[in-house]
Amino acid sequence: MKHLQGLQDQVNLAMETLELPNQPSLLYDPISYTLSNGGKRMRPLLVLMGCKVFSEDISQAVHPAIGIEVFHNFTLLHDDIMDNAPIRRGKPAVHSKWNSNIAILSGDAMMILAYQELCKTDPSVLPQILEVFNKTALEVCEGQQLDMDFETAEDVSIADYLNMIRLKTAVVLGGGLQVGAIIAKTDSEQADLLYQFGLNTGIAFQLQDDILDVYGESHKVGKQKGGDIIASKKTFLLLKAMELAKGEEAESLKKWLASNSESEKVKAVTEIYNRLGIRTLAEEQMWDYYNKGISSLNQLQGDKEWIGILRAFSENLMHRES
Amino acid sequence: MKHLQGLQDQVNLAMETLELPNQPSLLYDPISYTLSNGGKRMRPLLVLMGCKVFSEDISQAVHPAIGIEVFHNFTLLHDDIMDNAPIRRGKPAVHSKWNSNIAILSGDAMMILAYQELCKTDPSVLPQILEVFNKTALEVCEGQQLDMDFETAEDVSIADYLNMIRLKTAVVLGGGLQVGAIIAKTDSEQADLLYQFGLNTGIAFQLQDDILDVYGESHKVGKQKGGDIIASKKTFLLLKAMELAKGEEAESLKKWLASNSESEKVKAVTEIYNRLGIRTLAEEQMWDYYNKGISSLNQLQGDKEWIGILRAFSENLMHRES
Repeated sequence: MKHLQGLQDQVNLAMETLELPNQPSLLYDPISYTLSNGGKRMRPLLVLMGCKVFSEDISQAVHPAIGIEVFHNFTLLHDDIMDNAPIRRGKPAVHSKWNSNIAILSGDAMMILAYQELCKTDPSVLPQILEVFNKTALEVCEGQQLDMDFETAEDVSIADYLNMIRLKTAVVLGGGLQVGAIIAKTDSEQADLLYQFGLNTGIAFQLQDDILDVYGESHKVGKQKGGDIIASKKTFLLLKAMELAKGEEAESLKKWLASNSESEKVKAVTEIYNRLGIRTLAEEQMWDYYNKGISSLNQLQGDKEWIGILRAFSENLMHRES
Repeated sequence: MKHLQGLQDQVNLAMETLELPNQPSLLYDPISYTLSNGGKRMRPLLVLMGCKVFSEDISQAVHPAIGIEVFHNFTLLHDDIMDNAPIRRGKPAVHSKWNSNIAILSGDAMMILAYQELCKTDPSVLPQILEVFNKTALEVCEGQQLDMDFETAEDVSIADYLNMIRLKTAVVLGGGLQVGAIIAKTDSEQADLLYQFGLNTGIAFQLQDDILDVYGESHKVGKQKGGDIIASKKTFLLLKAMELAKGEEAESLKKWLASNSESEKVKAVTEIYNRLGIRTLAEEQMWDYYNKGISSLNQLQGDKEWIGILRAFSENLMHRES
């Protein structure tokens, strides 16, 4: 019986044994701090699963998997500076614990460390995996820029929003799976199917995050319920509500978005969402993407058990309550 | 007759034809702005020269050369945020013209673009050049961290300072030459000699910068004369003066370092340097490194004309007045 735990253990072991230089300590301490702070480590797992679908041997995929996790943590570190977010995974963000300069530079070093890990693989696949990774990494920056642009933009469409979450969140999931498939030396069509699976389910996961922010069980969300509403963040839900609300409802929504009274704002905007049926619309959009992802998965000609594990893994994510 | 101009033209052409995406414009405009702002473009030239020493064909070195220039510009962009430096090459730095968040993210994207260019080369040498580049890039971050650490440290030694400028400035010059040599498929011993040439002359160039800050012709320096003194920057000159000054001289130096009256401070500290013979000591140290670099160059078994051009290039840099 093949299962995930073994891969998860390999990821954790590799993360824990990742060797960082000691000096200068103000460069490397924030990196150790960040990387030892856990997280779901979903991305390296996807790299290894992507490899397992096409090859028993994942030895060449472990370092690249870690590289993608280090890259992901680098983006969080820099995003937290830009978003002025003081807390990450329940602890002070690097820029709060140290300062912004330390966070900028240790983030830069983390990106280089990510490339160092990526390069520790079979040289024959290196150009291909770097091509995927470079493209993906640049897209993540584009997604973050769009996310920042949207804070002040007046005319963000649903399509703009979906494109932003595709870039900011989903491409790394697709890219990670594709890197795994490339290391397993499958053909480009199969690797692309795996990419499409990761990309589309990734968009679905982000839509679900948006839904859970409003409708999740707050003690499980692990962050303030309705945080997106409080910040007037232009999520799928808010953009859809802005599109559908007419007359008095539109005026009311506009008024509440300008409000500073947090709990009343969450309550009032949620009620508007409820009246407009936003949750259902968001869930429909989410399941559309999810099913699109699964249809790519169904076309894979790889190891059936691992394909099944990937399917179960993504189903699990879709049934989380936080 | 072989000469530099052709290589310089190739570098400039490649920089001008470097294709960047257009959108999101707040991500890519600051990158175009930075890369079109010139600079000496010495680093890509070193990559091409390093290649020319061992091979007529430099076609596989052009993109990696551009990659190293893009990386260098990325480091300047992020350094300017950290150093709170408003001007770069006579124009507003990116964080002044836009803001810090834009500067952080466009810098991140530039680093990825640098890797993209580096990867456009003969795949058979890619693992080796990435190994050199990753190591070098990480060292540059270490150098920047040490430079920041030294601002507030009380006990910086001359050895600490030389190590800092080695990391922050010199390794990229050595690494660039080494990358060129690797692309030309020379053996590792020869590539290492070229690295040592770049590393040691690079330290000499930085020591010369320190000297020119105080003793250069101000209209040619292109920045405020005595800027290092005004900032009480712990350069070789200041550290040497702090080491040698005794009794009243030491008290006087200490007093002036705390002073805010810029022109008087520059005049007084320069007089202390003069009394202690600091300029000569710095020049001796500089020539020691320079000669060490040239002795590596002299051991190269490559194209004699290109070795001569490299020697002339570094001599030229040593005789600049600004």
